[in-house]
Amino acid sequence: MSQDNQVVKYDDNNIFAKMLNSDIPHHKVYEDDKTLAFMDIMPQAEGHVLVIPKQKAIDLADLEPEYAAAVLMTSKKVMQAQRQVFAREGIIQMQLNGAQAGQTVFHYHVHLIPGNIHELGIHAAKQADGEALANMAQKLAAAISDF
Amino acid sequence: MSQDNQVVKYDDNNIFAKMLNSDIPHHKVYEDDKTLAFMDIMPQAEGHVLVIPKQKAIDLADLEPEYAAAVLMTSKKVMQAQRQVFAREGIIQMQLNGAQAGQTVFHYHVHLIPGNIHELGIHAAKQADGEALANMAQKLAAAISDF
Repeated sequence: MSQDNQVVKYDDNNIFAKMLNSDIPHHKVYEDDKTLAFMDIMPQAEGHVLVIPKQKAIDLADLEPEYAAAVLMTSKKVMQAQRQVFAREGIIQMQLNGAQAGQTVFHYHVHLIPGNIHELGIHAAKQADGEALANMAQKLAAAISDF
Repeated sequence: MSQDNQVVKYDDNNIFAKMLNSDIPHHKVYEDDKTLAFMDIMPQAEGHVLVIPKQKAIDLADLEPEYAAAVLMTSKKVMQAQRQVFAREGIIQMQLNGAQAGQTVFHYHVHLIPGNIHELGIHAAKQADGEALANMAQKLAAAISDF
């Protein structure tokens, strides 16, 4: 967030930074040299996945072009896998910039949510069952190789 | 939407295709060889901008890598201009895939909405004043050259 005088520094101890360092376990869906995709543990709908760049970017203002492209291409793969695994067409892509918008973790992340924009659950409200998440991650990871 | 047996063909007469052909007037914020950004005429918050690729893509499943990268880089410029012009930090990036998710125009488009995800207005509900939109487009277009 590089607005006006406000300079917010990237926090190396944010939860997604720790996932990238493998300090925190996560239900991985996909990984390549520039991105990581995993299940959101507080899903706004069943099958909610997050995609993050392997760049220390707080939000879109910091994101470098090569990571921007990589995040969107990984999102494309994940979205197609979600459509296949959950047998539904509607997938919301959402990315919040700044606490004022509702951003809660300050490492750039794209939400991919099987759902309708007018029926979304509350962001970061309730933790999901770990076994169910692990199961979904496995199905998505298997499906993603088709795309 | 390339799910299962459902094949939806790109409609050359959709409203954004017509904007790209200059058949329909719009309040332009930014344009380059691969993208166009303009004011949403049914804003979910003040300063709501749409960014579209100059590719006949219905949704993320169709988007080619070079257009994906271009759309995100244009979104980055627009978001920074929005922060400056509206003096606020919180900007939502949202992109709906499929009617089931709430997509209403079937040409890929990214919403950039100055607002909070929990206080969003209803999508495509109410038309805004043309003069106010023209005024905002002008301010954003002037600011965008900084980014």
